[in-house]
Parts: sequence; C-alpha cells; structure tokens
Amino acid sequence: MRWSRYFWYTSKDDPADVEAPSHKYLVKGGFIKQIASGVYQYTPPALRVLRKIESIVRKEMDRTGAQEVLLTVLNPAELWRETGRWDLYGRELFTLKDRHGRDYCLGPTHEEEVTDLFRSYVTSYRQLPLILYQIQVKFRDEKRPRFGLIRAREFIMKDAYSFDLDEFSAIMSYEAMKFAYDRIFKKMRLKTLMVEASVGAIGGKSSHEFVVLTDYGEARVAYCENCSYAANAEIVPLGKGKEEDEPEMPLQKVATPGVSTIEELSRFLKVPPRKILKGLLYVVEEKEPLLVFIRGDRQVDENKLEAILGTDNFRLAKDEEIKEILGTVRGFVGPLSLKNNVRVLWDNSLYGVKNMVVAINEPDVHYVNANPGRDFHYGDMVDVCQVEEGDPCPKCGAPLKVNRGLEVGHIFLLGTRYSEPMKAFVKDSEGKDVPVVMGCYGIGISRCMSAIVEQHHDEKGIKWPTPVAPFELDIVCVNISDEEQRAVAEKLYTTAQEMGVEVLYDDRDESPGSKFADADLCGFPYRIVVGKKVKEGKVEVQSRHTGERWDAPIEEAVGQVKELIHQEKL
Amino acid sequence: MRWSRYFWYTSKDDPADVEAPSHKYLVKGGFIKQIASGVYQYTPPALRVLRKIESIVRKEMDRTGAQEVLLTVLNPAELWRETGRWDLYGRELFTLKDRHGRDYCLGPTHEEEVTDLFRSYVTSYRQLPLILYQIQVKFRDEKRPRFGLIRAREFIMKDAYSFDLDEFSAIMSYEAMKFAYDRIFKKMRLKTLMVEASVGAIGGKSSHEFVVLTDYGEARVAYCENCSYAANAEIVPLGKGKEEDEPEMPLQKVATPGVSTIEELSRFLKVPPRKILKGLLYVVEEKEPLLVFIRGDRQVDENKLEAILGTDNFRLAKDEEIKEILGTVRGFVGPLSLKNNVRVLWDNSLYGVKNMVVAINEPDVHYVNANPGRDFHYGDMVDVCQVEEGDPCPKCGAPLKVNRGLEVGHIFLLGTRYSEPMKAFVKDSEGKDVPVVMGCYGIGISRCMSAIVEQHHDEKGIKWPTPVAPFELDIVCVNISDEEQRAVAEKLYTTAQEMGVEVLYDDRDESPGSKFADADLCGFPYRIVVGKKVKEGKVEVQSRHTGERWDAPIEEAVGQVKELIHQEKL
Repeated sequence: MRWSRYFWYTSKDDPADVEAPSHKYLVKGGFIKQIASGVYQYTPPALRVLRKIESIVRKEMDRTGAQEVLLTVLNPAELWRETGRWDLYGRELFTLKDRHGRDYCLGPTHEEEVTDLFRSYVTSYRQLPLILYQIQVKFRDEKRPRFGLIRAREFIMKDAYSFDLDEFSAIMSYEAMKFAYDRIFKKMRLKTLMVEASVGAIGGKSSHEFVVLTDYGEARVAYCENCSYAANAEIVPLGKGKEEDEPEMPLQKVATPGVSTIEELSRFLKVPPRKILKGLLYVVEEKEPLLVFIRGDRQVDENKLEAILGTDNFRLAKDEEIKEILGTVRGFVGPLSLKNNVRVLWDNSLYGVKNMVVAINEPDVHYVNANPGRDFHYGDMVDVCQVEEGDPCPKCGAPLKVNRGLEVGHIFLLGTRYSEPMKAFVKDSEGKDVPVVMGCYGIGISRCMSAIVEQHHDEKGIKWPTPVAPFELDIVCVNISDEEQRAVAEKLYTTAQEMGVEVLYDDRDESPGSKFADADLCGFPYRIVVGKKVKEGKVEVQSRHTGERWDAPIEEAVGQVKELIHQEKL
Repeated sequence: MRWSRYFWYTSKDDPADVEAPSHKYLVKGGFIKQIASGVYQYTPPALRVLRKIESIVRKEMDRTGAQEVLLTVLNPAELWRETGRWDLYGRELFTLKDRHGRDYCLGPTHEEEVTDLFRSYVTSYRQLPLILYQIQVKFRDEKRPRFGLIRAREFIMKDAYSFDLDEFSAIMSYEAMKFAYDRIFKKMRLKTLMVEASVGAIGGKSSHEFVVLTDYGEARVAYCENCSYAANAEIVPLGKGKEEDEPEMPLQKVATPGVSTIEELSRFLKVPPRKILKGLLYVVEEKEPLLVFIRGDRQVDENKLEAILGTDNFRLAKDEEIKEILGTVRGFVGPLSLKNNVRVLWDNSLYGVKNMVVAINEPDVHYVNANPGRDFHYGDMVDVCQVEEGDPCPKCGAPLKVNRGLEVGHIFLLGTRYSEPMKAFVKDSEGKDVPVVMGCYGIGISRCMSAIVEQHHDEKGIKWPTPVAPFELDIVCVNISDEEQRAVAEKLYTTAQEMGVEVLYDDRDESPGSKFADADLCGFPYRIVVGKKVKEGKVEVQSRHTGERWDAPIEEAVGQVKELIHQEKL
C-alpha cells in the first residue's frame, strides 16, 4: 500500500480530554474516530488490526472444536422475558420498539439467543458436548463510556457458549476455554492475569476475568503474592476489623468553620483520617436518598454498592439535594438528627473505631470523641469499601497488592441459569430430560486493540506487536523528489510485496521529520529508511520494539526484516 | 468436518408459511433460523456460505482500489438531522434513545456517517478520488418482511461510497463499480440484469439496480427487447392512452345484486374489465381516507402510490371503514355522491375510456354507459398503475416484458445530496472550496445467499455453485457399521483434507436414504458414496449440478473431484 493513496490521516496534535495512552494514540494515529459517546468508527489500518485479532481468536476457538455461528443484534424481548433478564438487566440494555410496537434489545450478550438456537436443534446427550461461538458487534449503554475502545457502548466481541450434559463435563469445557484464552492472549502479546470475578448480570455459578494490568482499566484487581489469590477488587470481601483498645473520651462539640474535607478536618483537629466518620449522600434511581457511612480513610466501592442496591442508577447528591434532604452542606453530613426516611448503610470499616469525629448535619460544627453505642448507633453493617493495597487477603491474610486492570476476557460457569427457565433440556443416556449445563466465554475484540496499545507503547506512540500490526514494515523515502532514493524505495516496496511482507510505502510528500514521527506514532514493527546512504548502496533498518537501527545493503534489507518478522510471529 | 460432530440439523418437514424456494430450503436445510420477523440466525454452514460471498465481494472491491473501513450501527440523530433524513426516512428507520435521552437510529445505510468520516480527514482534491466500503449488519424495519433473507429487517450488506472532485470523475467511479458488480455477481454465479431504478430514500441523481429474475423478488422489473431499456417497474412511466372512438351511450342504472368483483361484473354485464371503473379506498397514516380510481383491468402499483404520498404507511380500508367513510360496501365504491373530505386520485389508465360501468356508493347497483365529462368529472390524473407485460416501452414504444426480480445490488450517483448539507468540501486545484461529488453502492450480502438458492435449486433442494458452497464435497458412508466401508470413507476423508478439498464426512448413524436426501437438500456440488462397491475397489462419484454419477477407483475419486472443483472455481 502506498501511503499517498491510503485513507490514513494522523494528527500532529494530542486529542483533547483523553487520558489513556491507547485512547490518545489510536485517535492521534488516525485509527479510530468517535461518532457518539463510546461509539467509534474504524479506519482502514484499524480494521487490519481488528481482523488480525479476530483471526487469532477464531483460530484458537476452532482448535478447541468450537463452531462459529452468527446470531442477531435485534433480540426479541420475549426471549429475555423467559429468563427474567428483560427486567433485571437494567439501564445498560439498549431497548427499542419496531413499527408494530414490539420490544427488542440490542444484544449485549447472547445467552438467551444461543439457548434458543440450541433448544431448537439439540435433544439428546449424544449431540453433546457442544461449543458455539460468534464474533459480532455488541451494545451496552455504559454509564460512563471512556478511554476510547476500553469502555465503549458499541464494541466487537467474541462470545462463546458451551453446552454439556453435566457439571463435570461443563467444567472440562470451562477449562478448555481457559487454556484457549491463555494461548489467544499470548498470541496477541497481551500479558494477562486471571482473576476471580463477579457473575454480575450474566449470572451463574462462578466466573474468571482475564485482566491486563494498566492504569486505565475500568476494573481494579487485587492479588496476593503469598497464596496466589487474585480477584476483581469489587468482589474481595472486607470484614470488620478489630475493636480499638482505647478508653472512650467525653463527647465534645467543636467549631469547624468551613472545614469540610477529610484532609482539612484531619489537619485542623489533629486526628488521623481513620478516626473521622465520612458520610456520603447518594440519590438512587433519581428519587431515593441513601446515606453511606465509611471510615474517613477509605473509599466507597461503587461496584459493591451497585451489587447491594441491584441497580447502577445512583449518583452522589448535589449541593441543593444535600440541603433539601439533610438540611446541611457538603462536608457536614453526619449520623445524628437524621430524618427517618433516609436509608443508611454502615460500612464494615467503621467497626471498632473509637473516639471518632462526626458531623451532625449542621454546618461548621463537628463532634469529637463520638463513640458508637454511646453517642449514636450503627445499623446492620455491610461491605461497600474499596479494597486498598495492604488489605488482608481473604484466603491467607497476607497483604494484598492492588492494581488497575482492564478486563479483556471473561468466562462464566453458568450452570442451568438459562437452560432451566428456557427449557433447554436434553435426554440423558437413561432417557431422562435434564437441563443442559452451560458456560459462556467472552473476549472484547475491539477492547483488545486498546489493551495491546496500553501494554505496547512509549512516549512517541504505539509499538504494535508484529502479529497484530496493521503493517509489518514501513518504507520511508526521505526525499521523494530525489530520483535515486525514490527508485530504491519503489524497488524495496515491490520486493517486500513479492516476499509477502505486509508493507506500507510512505511516498507522501511530507518532511522526513513528520514521516518519522508518524512511523513512531503508528507503530510499525520495522522501518526501512531510504536516504542519502543509497549512494553507498545502503539503507537503514530500524526496529520499533528494540529501538535498534543498522545499515543494511539495499538488496538484503527486506530479507533481514522478513526473517525478523518470521521469528516474531512464531 | 465430521457431520456427527457438526452443528447442522436438517428437517424432514417443509417449514410452514414459506413461499420462496430459497426460504424453504435454507430453513429446511438448517442454514438459518428465524428469531423474530425478518431476523435470522446463521448456523455454521450458513456462515461458511456468507463468508465466501463476503470474500468474493471484498476481493473485487479491493481490486478497484476501494478501502475497507468499519462504521457504526448506532447512528446519532444529529448527523441524520444535518441531511434532513431523520424526518424524511420514515418508518423503516429503527430508532432508539440512550440512557440520557439522546436519539439514535440503527444504520440502514451510511451516507451520513461516511460523509462525516470523510470531512474529518479530507480537505484537498489531492486526496481524491476515494472509495470507502464496509461489510456490516444493517437494519430496516420493513413493512412486510418475507421470503427469509430476501426481505429481512436485519441483514448484512456491503456498502461503498465514492468521493470525487467533479461529476465527470464521479461517473468514472460509478462505472468502475458497475464493472466490479458485474464481476462479483458472475463469481457468485448469479445471473443479473442491470435496470434503472428509483433513488428513493437515498436520494441523488440516478441509480441502477442489479436484479436477479425470480418469482420471489420483492421488485418487478420491466425490460424492452427492442431497445434494451430495463427498469424497476415502479419507475416505468405509464401515460394516458388514446381516446376511444365510440359514441357516448345513454346513462343507465342497473341492479347488480351482490355482483362485487370486476370479474363478476364483467360477466354479469357482458362488458370487458377495461370498461369498468375500479375504486379502491385506502387509509393513509391510519387517519386520512384516500380513494384511488383505476381502469378495471389494471392494478395499483403501491410503490408508485408510496412515491406520490411520501409515506409507506397506508393500507386498503377494512369493510367497516368503507361503510363508515363512504356509506357503501366493498365492490360498490364509485366516484358519485362522494363526501368532500375524501382525497381522490385518478389513474392515467382511465383517460379516454367511454361508456364505463361505475359504482355509485350504493350497494347492489351500478351505472352503465357512464362518461366522464358528461356524468362525472376526473380530477388531475396521476400515474399509479402497475406496469404489465405488453405495456409500451417509454423509450421506443415496443411492448415491454415484465418479470419479478430480486435486487441484489443497487448503485446511486448521489451528486452533492450529502456533501452540500454536511459541508464536506474540498479545495480544488485553484484553492476554491467545492462540495465533493459522491456515489454509493450496495450489495445485499445475506440476500445474495437467498438469490443464489433461487437461481440454483431443484425439487430436491439446493445446488450450491462451487465457489460459494458450504462444503465442496460430501462423503457418504452408506453403512457406518460396515468396517470396510467405514475404513474407506475415513481414508477418503483424510485424503480430501490433505488435498485441500473442503469436505464434510457424513458419518452420522442415519439411513442411507436420509443421508442422500440431506446431501441433495444441502446442495454439496460433489458427493462420493462409499457403499457395497468398495469390494470391487470402487466408489460412486456424483455431481449435484449435472446429476451425473459414475464409478471411480477408490484411489482416484478425490483427485477427480478436486480437478472438477478447480475447473468450476476459475
């Protein structure tokens, strides 16, 4: 491909409002373009990357004996009503009506559809085990789409579904998928960690996520270097601590004019944050107020809160709402003199803390040395606390490590969550009807593209691993108006094509500097620079990964690159 | 692939409520399964066919220099408002809101999106010409989904868009696409006719359809064997005829008790149908009555009517509505004593007919020898008449041929229909901003699958052309419990795989009859039957296309098939 004829336009400027490196480089590098919040178009080079990722996934799925199908985007509501998910799935479900007023959703996952396909053809244990998969566009109306392809609302996914006669066999399928996932991510050059995860809206008995550690993941993962426990932080249980061993001091009211954050209060009163009772007012489903109390040094894990509330439709209250509901201002929300109609959650972290600083829903004043049981009372305690580095491992008690992570794969042992309500029964060897035991297995194909960039970039741009690079080789002609240079570049371009190297020939009439910058930004594994040294019969070869550069005789350059590419694709 | 392990289940029974052979065989053959009206799932063999069709299309598109992108299913309303299509497109547009109340449609075609992509990267004539394309799932809320994949609501489409500096260059792109389409359909073994077509909701300057002649097309095409004119019947103009040369007879009221159809009336009154004024009462947008009068021997073309009304939301009135609106009953709807609030359309066919039979909105009675001008008056005349075989060619006047047709491709010269309102301007060589001149080019990928079956089947089932067959060869082991037969079949299966033949090995424990029936139904181009003749060192080879069958030595059978396949794929 000649770049001068190719629909690929990079930008010199960093895109605005972009945090994740993958988001920045994919936009700046002209790979993706946002058309609506969390909805992206793919340009020709991006599609090349996507197809390579798909092809890696497809090959490994086929190798397990899984069979590819294509299900539909429009999912009729009737199917989702059979499993109850039409009402349970919540606001992430995009729904619509057709011209006759019938309800559909845009499939965010396809358990219902695939189970319907299964039950219309399979009736006997002899037809098992079976794994069906598809690679398809999916839709989730995310609360906060961000980080480009990382948390998108329209995305490409590989979803597989296993069907087995019994749980033992289902676990075999589950393990086969784990093994395939390992191979898939290795082939994409993604380093992943497998962690225990919440089954969430999919349901089922257990699940694991494959997570890429990066600062811009939408998840937090906790892992223990002592016992190898690893889990999505949102499911790591945090229990009550030990009771503090100190005498209860007398309650005292102090003026704290305008001292409203935990940090300010801690400084002002010379009390550690853990001794301060933090109160957060939420509004649930735009109507119900909810007060969450937690220790001043801890944060609320909104995923844990979502699990408790059964909805993701909640948010922190605005100043007016705090005023209206509690009669106070931000920073002075406390457990005292509450109106009865406010639901309250007390986090486990508060257990056993003595002599606390508490607000009393009155501006500019706090109590110090408040003690639960004496000065106020906890209700039932719950776990809504975000896990932090150093918290105890729930398996062995050793201190946990915590990292941001990006989920690229998620597998679920579903059991009969779908087959029971949908009556996907098969006859077993004794002629008895039993519900088929299912598993489901997702890979975020488009998200992998971002994950790869997260793990393979530097300050100049992307460093595509060779197996997924849009082009393996970039030939840069330094001075396109120099006849000799151009002739050599053209020759090398032809040679690369003939040798089966995926080559982009940068024949654009741009400055050498901007061509080199684009080559770094767009992340070609190899670059051949055709410049002044052609007079000595030489060109420069560069590796984007190692940063190495060396002169090679013109006639050997492409061969050298081809050999290196070959090694890297093994 | 071994059939015993493959997710492919045929049915012995014909599906209910199915008209088109392609619909019947694709459902019965286990290729597709309906999940909602006009929404189909694809099983593994269907996906193989689909991928082959896609790959033929992709190869030919790439050959023209077109570049593949991937646009989005969710189209934000703002883009469609820029071109006015948000309001114009009508009820075929699936629309929905996200959790923030923002409007989207599910892309039925992507002129807006691709123009937006274009304008964000292209600014100069130097970047032209350009053709972008994608293969993607599309959505249209069809009024009457039917014939399986032929008129579906969710379907796979290849859509391409050309961008040129001026109309001359745009016509070159248009011609290049015509040429590519010819090659594409030939490679799929589809015989197509290129016809002039309506631009419809896409808009633009002119358009052509590529049509497969079949009884189950959703279109009717008219063509002239004299001057080679060919067009979608809905755009073939029918003008006024000659005035009849006969004296006006005296008006007479006659009793026609219960004589309500044109045929009955013609027999009863001994008058040819063309002398009878036919009145049809429609209800438009569920509120406005509309009366259409047409000559008794002609039919209303509802596509022409849609073009006149600007909506597809109309239907024939029910008996109660005829009673309520006109005070009469079906068969006695006439032009006399009409209430003022009923809109009336008079078809051109009525022009010049004398001494007609007309109803008078009174049951069981008609006038005979009614003459317009004397006994009642025509309003402005329109063309809503369906073209019939023998109608005059609008180019040369020779009698037209008319056939049902299935549109598999549609190309449009758009001009600046989208670039003007969306400000997709480029600088020309003199630095002046000009709107880019566009074309758009669709192929119904999933519809092609049905079209191929329409053109390639017999009473037993499908006859897949080799280039798009799910498998090229079916090896049938007649008696799976016969050791010798099974050993030979296994050997041939291995040999076929090694020789690169796409083979399905029917190792199912089924009767030979049902295996043969499935082979015919599923349409494998070649079959090798391993039966009793293995004792003589022979197997039977069969061609599904020619029906030929011959004995071949075991060791030569696969080689023979491979050579035949090779010939057919050229």
